[in-house]
Amino acid sequence: MQALLFDNELRFTDIELPERKPGEALIRVLLAGICNTDLEITRGYMDFTGVPGHEFVGVVEECDTPSLVGKRVVGEINAGCGDCELCDSGDPRHCWDRTVLGIFGRNGAFAEYLTLPETNLHIVHENIPDTAAVFTEPLAAALQIFEDPLCGVSQDTPLAIIGDGKLGLLVVQAALARGYSPALFGKSPHKLNLADSWRIQTYIKLDECIDIFSIVIECSGKPSGLKDAMDIVEPKGIIILKSTYAADEELDLSRIVIDELSLIGSRCGRFPPALEMLEKNKIDTNSLITAVYPLSEGPEAFRRAGERDSLKILLNIANKPIYLT
Amino acid sequence: MQALLFDNELRFTDIELPERKPGEALIRVLLAGICNTDLEITRGYMDFTGVPGHEFVGVVEECDTPSLVGKRVVGEINAGCGDCELCDSGDPRHCWDRTVLGIFGRNGAFAEYLTLPETNLHIVHENIPDTAAVFTEPLAAALQIFEDPLCGVSQDTPLAIIGDGKLGLLVVQAALARGYSPALFGKSPHKLNLADSWRIQTYIKLDECIDIFSIVIECSGKPSGLKDAMDIVEPKGIIILKSTYAADEELDLSRIVIDELSLIGSRCGRFPPALEMLEKNKIDTNSLITAVYPLSEGPEAFRRAGERDSLKILLNIANKPIYLT
Repeated sequence: MQALLFDNELRFTDIELPERKPGEALIRVLLAGICNTDLEITRGYMDFTGVPGHEFVGVVEECDTPSLVGKRVVGEINAGCGDCELCDSGDPRHCWDRTVLGIFGRNGAFAEYLTLPETNLHIVHENIPDTAAVFTEPLAAALQIFEDPLCGVSQDTPLAIIGDGKLGLLVVQAALARGYSPALFGKSPHKLNLADSWRIQTYIKLDECIDIFSIVIECSGKPSGLKDAMDIVEPKGIIILKSTYAADEELDLSRIVIDELSLIGSRCGRFPPALEMLEKNKIDTNSLITAVYPLSEGPEAFRRAGERDSLKILLNIANKPIYLT
Repeated sequence: MQALLFDNELRFTDIELPERKPGEALIRVLLAGICNTDLEITRGYMDFTGVPGHEFVGVVEECDTPSLVGKRVVGEINAGCGDCELCDSGDPRHCWDRTVLGIFGRNGAFAEYLTLPETNLHIVHENIPDTAAVFTEPLAAALQIFEDPLCGVSQDTPLAIIGDGKLGLLVVQAALARGYSPALFGKSPHKLNLADSWRIQTYIKLDECIDIFSIVIECSGKPSGLKDAMDIVEPKGIIILKSTYAADEELDLSRIVIDELSLIGSRCGRFPPALEMLEKNKIDTNSLITAVYPLSEGPEAFRRAGERDSLKILLNIANKPIYLT
């Protein structure tokens, strides 16, 4: 099958069809999205070699459960060992022996086919176009912030989001959908304009803002974002870390202690709340799509995804027409 | 008056008596303790110049409230502006315009006299010897962990403490007093022996331990302590940061996100719970005292406090006999 393979460099090539294990489904990928984690992988993150990609929508081609065959699905990316305490308690996301689609120990979605455990799959409602369904994974991660670390936090709480990239803009929409009124700190007038259209307060410079915030969500993907977060969070405030950095970065830890801050990491989320929001058309995913490339132009798509003005770059793996509504 | 003055170097010298402002008390210092923060100050932390020292017990010499004069007191170290929203809400600890005794904008306890707002003072019960009262501030900070970030956390929760210095050993005792069964990770056989006498599990090497912990309290004062904490904390676990580091340090932030950890800074605590514990003789402070120096030998006392095998070094500022029971 055709695939994008990363092994020191990223190239479009032919590889073997993945082998489906018992309990797994073989999925034909329709559309896949390039995430910053994918860009980090091509810079050495997680020492991953293989097929990257973990945001996808596809169709089940083969599996043990006959009723699933032919269904359009999205898939949770962590595949637990199925045999440990964490997996037994329903948390394969933190299983020590887990594989992670396109990130760790398992080939990902930038290929014609992938495999995932059937239990990872969620059927996509017919109301949701592929171009929206492909956002399920990052939207689930964005919504998770408000489900777990911030569960029960009042919607009046002063909340800021740092980073106007695709993740930040999705988190803004998740916050709005959950009833918060976030402020957004970004670098790009173009991207902030988009956020302005959602009627939120935006700032291009930190010192334009005289407020401080109880909660700051760091989505910039840059270590400077965390330093900025510390500058606008109130004492005893909460900073949510969403983005993973490949490198060790410098951080003045004493500020966490002196201001008694909480720094909370948040990674993946449950898919059902994201699918429900997409089904109800509550998230503007179209505005977040910058371009759609065929799989054969994957390396160029990655280059474009790394450019400053770019938001989500999709790979049209099934090579079908793209319907945006 | 005689004082230890830090201004690029630490020296024993004569300085002016501090001026008492309205609402403040002039306190004659009896005993003071050297904390790692004091050592950090002599390495440049907070750019502080002046008299360091924030752990003390003393006697009120002058103040606006006649009944306080002559009383033996300890004092909370943050002095708020008294005029802002945080001060009004009873939280001068985080006032933006606060001074901090011997750390920021206010001369400290390594001198014959200091001043603090009367509202910062707590009278010391006659049951508590000076040598125990001088531990009130660090004990309050240790107990605070179990009051605020860990409030309501079950005593069965697997809990580890990293660092067998004076702070770590005080946190161990605070944890035991609050009903937890902490494990202690340290470097010094001598100090771990002391902890062994309290019948807790101790480890001198990380890989001796096969358990993981829901909560890890980092008291080592070294960036490596945080890395160790990340190695022994469970996914979605909590790391409490107690020690302040002067330098920016390298930290792989992606582990916080991937393992969805919470990193919570904790600094000072309320004095009444600490004084209550000392009054009931529930904390073994004597075992934590390595030596007592006269103020005139302050620089030598600092040198000794910085040695690896040292625990608490006290300064006998009133030059009175030291009674350990």
